[in-house]
Amino acid sequence: MYLLLASTAMRNFIVVGHKATTTPNFSLEDIPGTSGRLDILCRAVTSAFVLSHGIRKDVCVYLVLLGGETAKTIQLRGETLRHLNPDERTTAALLKKALAVPATPQWAMSTSGIFVRTGGFPELLSDLKDARLIYLREDGTDIRPISKESGKECMACASPSGEMAFILGDHTGMMPEEEALLEQAGARVVSLGPVSLHADHCIVLINWLLDTDPVMFE
Amino acid sequence: MYLLLASTAMRNFIVVGHKATTTPNFSLEDIPGTSGRLDILCRAVTSAFVLSHGIRKDVCVYLVLLGGETAKTIQLRGETLRHLNPDERTTAALLKKALAVPATPQWAMSTSGIFVRTGGFPELLSDLKDARLIYLREDGTDIRPISKESGKECMACASPSGEMAFILGDHTGMMPEEEALLEQAGARVVSLGPVSLHADHCIVLINWLLDTDPVMFE
Repeated sequence: MYLLLASTAMRNFIVVGHKATTTPNFSLEDIPGTSGRLDILCRAVTSAFVLSHGIRKDVCVYLVLLGGETAKTIQLRGETLRHLNPDERTTAALLKKALAVPATPQWAMSTSGIFVRTGGFPELLSDLKDARLIYLREDGTDIRPISKESGKECMACASPSGEMAFILGDHTGMMPEEEALLEQAGARVVSLGPVSLHADHCIVLINWLLDTDPVMFE
Repeated sequence: MYLLLASTAMRNFIVVGHKATTTPNFSLEDIPGTSGRLDILCRAVTSAFVLSHGIRKDVCVYLVLLGGETAKTIQLRGETLRHLNPDERTTAALLKKALAVPATPQWAMSTSGIFVRTGGFPELLSDLKDARLIYLREDGTDIRPISKESGKECMACASPSGEMAFILGDHTGMMPEEEALLEQAGARVVSLGPVSLHADHCIVLINWLLDTDPVMFE
């Protein structure tokens, strides 16, 4: 049984920052050292959205920030996203603004296309229950583009919502309790190959694979 | 005739910054606005080298800086490169140090694995005359990984030095006189697909293609 990911479906990227700050009290002059590695999440945002001449409209990014007393999640929606530049500092400044918004369990808008709420990974998975969940892990099933010459018949396994959600860890990977939630939710565990890559580079690859060909894995 | 790029050959990435500063007089607080878009080159460096747990040793990056009175080139060699972190600002700080070194036509070391000299694109192409040159441009021949099931026979076209050199423009693309030099040097013009991507994202893709499979194009 092969899973086919159509290039037309909505692309959600979830990045979990286990140490990432939930307050705006970090320094733009030292993002890695003062924000619980929010720099990793900034680069993931850029990889997900920026093209040479625009922003990907069919992308949504969720940053799960677990480095504070209460977990927060920031959502960035390509359809309405504004003010995103390709450099890291500008993205960090947008996230700083989002973290200054008083957060409740309901989404509140910060700047155009950027929303924030309290709540962490379980709440987000519950929201995305109709999406096809794909968990990126080094020892997962190898992901490959379909060969046009292979002649293999592929089965399209569209999710009820037609959405995909790719889940990526930060530099600490994912926690056992998060992996248990993913398994319970029926997530596929998929690998991008033999070399261990940063989350932002994985996102570049996933976007490209979906841009060029449908993506297939067993 | 197909060109096969072996994954074991040395990988050179050349990024040309047409406005990029050749002096250290730029601000780390506003890299895009004060350095002639050196931020683009910083991200290219990170994409070329950083892995989850280390630096790619088989990579060499050349940054051609054309935004000053005299062109300069910075070389970063993976074998001996030190102090490179994945965030943009740290990379910019390393380049700032390199630009403070008095430059002559001979390579002078700045920090471990980072060298600088005067000279621009023609001088660099002359140094790399034995490498297989691959110029990334949107309308080039489509690059694809070899399908294991295609059964096609591929011809290995190793360059005399066993090296590859990928040439990428900045946000302004490449100039007609640079393209003429590339054509004269026998560079192949290759595309990564239908969507126009930033240079750093192209480098992520090339590294991945070479990591996972030999790469083939007509």
